[in-house]
Amino acid sequence: MEKLTIIKVGGKIVEEEETLKQLLADFSSIEGHKILVHGGGRSATALASRLGIESRLVNGRRVTDEETLKIVTMVYAGLVNKTIVARLQALNINALGLTGADLNYMRSEKRPVKEVDYGFVGDVKEVNAKILADLIHQDVVPVLAPLTHDKKGNMLNTNADTIAGEAAKALTGYFDVTLVFCFEKKGVLMDENDDESVISEITRPLFDEYVEKGMIRGGMIPKLENSFQAIQAGVKRVIITKASEINKATGSVIK
Amino acid sequence: MEKLTIIKVGGKIVEEEETLKQLLADFSSIEGHKILVHGGGRSATALASRLGIESRLVNGRRVTDEETLKIVTMVYAGLVNKTIVARLQALNINALGLTGADLNYMRSEKRPVKEVDYGFVGDVKEVNAKILADLIHQDVVPVLAPLTHDKKGNMLNTNADTIAGEAAKALTGYFDVTLVFCFEKKGVLMDENDDESVISEITRPLFDEYVEKGMIRGGMIPKLENSFQAIQAGVKRVIITKASEINKATGSVIK
Repeated sequence: MEKLTIIKVGGKIVEEEETLKQLLADFSSIEGHKILVHGGGRSATALASRLGIESRLVNGRRVTDEETLKIVTMVYAGLVNKTIVARLQALNINALGLTGADLNYMRSEKRPVKEVDYGFVGDVKEVNAKILADLIHQDVVPVLAPLTHDKKGNMLNTNADTIAGEAAKALTGYFDVTLVFCFEKKGVLMDENDDESVISEITRPLFDEYVEKGMIRGGMIPKLENSFQAIQAGVKRVIITKASEINKATGSVIK
Repeated sequence: MEKLTIIKVGGKIVEEEETLKQLLADFSSIEGHKILVHGGGRSATALASRLGIESRLVNGRRVTDEETLKIVTMVYAGLVNKTIVARLQALNINALGLTGADLNYMRSEKRPVKEVDYGFVGDVKEVNAKILADLIHQDVVPVLAPLTHDKKGNMLNTNADTIAGEAAKALTGYFDVTLVFCFEKKGVLMDENDDESVISEITRPLFDEYVEKGMIRGGMIPKLENSFQAIQAGVKRVIITKASEINKATGSVIK
């Protein structure tokens, strides 16, 4: 089976010129088929603020009212996605920016209201992997914005880690998939004050233990939950690393 | 040769709920292959205004500085494009939103500064018609935002009429193309105060005469220039009509 590397990068990296430039250079040097999944939260918050709209995050997830949905659609599908696509094209990467609505590649449903009403936030229900696989086989490089749709006419805000994880899982039938989550640190840290204390291999029991002890916490928990789900669904390797390391074999490997 | 209908609609129609709903219903009822090209100028102006940025138009074209380029990228490629794509998917139309950067389907060059410096505005140089044709043959319906790229990493603002015209011309090698420009009136009017005075057929000599007499003016001139160029390049029919008439055989036919 051919290899496919799915790289997920957070907002910070793609929103600053220097880090974006380095990221796209590194990304373009990855051999074989690839997908880039991006965030854009900081730009969304900045635009919302300029428009006098308060950004509200609960457990790291953006509460998305109607106005906020418009903002994230503009920022994620417009500004951030197209900036990346144009830049990749300049590097001779045949990029195609997609939201879940485009080609109906990823359908979601509005998250049911429980303790929190997240508003227009989508939980992924269906991934049309064949459409992505066909594009990839034509050497297209999908650039996935963190947005899905409900197939009823509504865009829905969807976490970029989730998009990356769901795409990875769905594509295991077509490719030998490596999923790479980039963030600010070189990997999952044993000690958050020591950037070199990267845990090189994380298993489920180790994860449970570290969460229990409070060593792994915050946004890292859903990231690792996504990773374990991906491994269980047939993704070959999940790596958590620094963006500048994506074409090296470093970081934390999730097994 | 199979038929292809390219519909270009202005911002006003896609930016208001009632007209958008009707347009998409009409558009989805058009038989055979189709493309939708949209504007979004009013929303761009509205967002710019909320952000305290002045919109400047010269000859109906937006002067696009760096900040304005970000705004139009957000509005055209994000908000307007994805709203349409999601709504078409709900109507079981397999829509795919594209800017010129996506799949490198339309490359432009920054307009040289002459009397006016339009800023980040692109003149179309190359259309990758095969990519569009392949998608269309797979029953994909491209939804084209009025943005191109220079293949050097920059998005460029490009008039939606031009996008529609260039796509139509490039696709004549693959399809029997009908190009429909929608606007507020039922067609090109003989008397602008009489909505029923539609000129049913316009030839080049007639156009020259009407421009000379001042009967055809403003934004209608580049629209008709585009139309004549399209006909010369092999487009079968160019129709100028009201959005609500797109699936009827009315309006002004350019020959």
